[in-house]
Amino acid sequence: FTQAGQASYYADKFNGKKTASGATYRPGKRTAAHNTLPFGTIVRVTNPRNHRSVKVKITDRGPHAKGRVIDLSRKAARRIGLVQAGVAPVQLKVVRAMPGSR
Amino acid sequence: FTQAGQASYYADKFNGKKTASGATYRPGKRTAAHNTLPFGTIVRVTNPRNHRSVKVKITDRGPHAKGRVIDLSRKAARRIGLVQAGVAPVQLKVVRAMPGSR
Repeated sequence: FTQAGQASYYADKFNGKKTASGATYRPGKRTAAHNTLPFGTIVRVTNPRNHRSVKVKITDRGPHAKGRVIDLSRKAARRIGLVQAGVAPVQLKVVRAMPGSR
Repeated sequence: FTQAGQASYYADKFNGKKTASGATYRPGKRTAAHNTLPFGTIVRVTNPRNHRSVKVKITDRGPHAKGRVIDLSRKAARRIGLVQAGVAPVQLKVVRAMPGSR
């Protein structure tokens, strides 16, 4: 599974809130929201503008906006230089699927 | 309850998909995603740039991005002139709370 589109990141107000998977959102963990990948899937997210990448675990659902493919935790966003821009193009590649998922 | 912030709207690919409330997303209905209001709450969404407003029912959760307060269905977005801009400032006002909700 690979996908290209735009990424944004969680506002700090979500700190301590429950995600769709049941896990609590923590800005310092490398997690993300994706609309279809099973919870627990590990995805490599690459920012082609600076060639930086980060691996994140899918723990939540979203985003809804057109062209948007993933919402990153603050730590993951910082790793790929997304915090200043707010939104940036990314490439996604699943590096570990959940057992039993397609 | 009143709130100000930015609104975006659902991509068309969500047509027929289940929302967090269990209801199916339909672009032609006036619905929205909000992070805290109970499902079923009716909210008036006003675009101060053109003074247009629409009433929507909360059926889903989201958005995550900073400053973003609501994601509108396509029909609701069109009513307030949001489709071209993609994102716009809005004001929210609850006009009918769910019974028993605070």
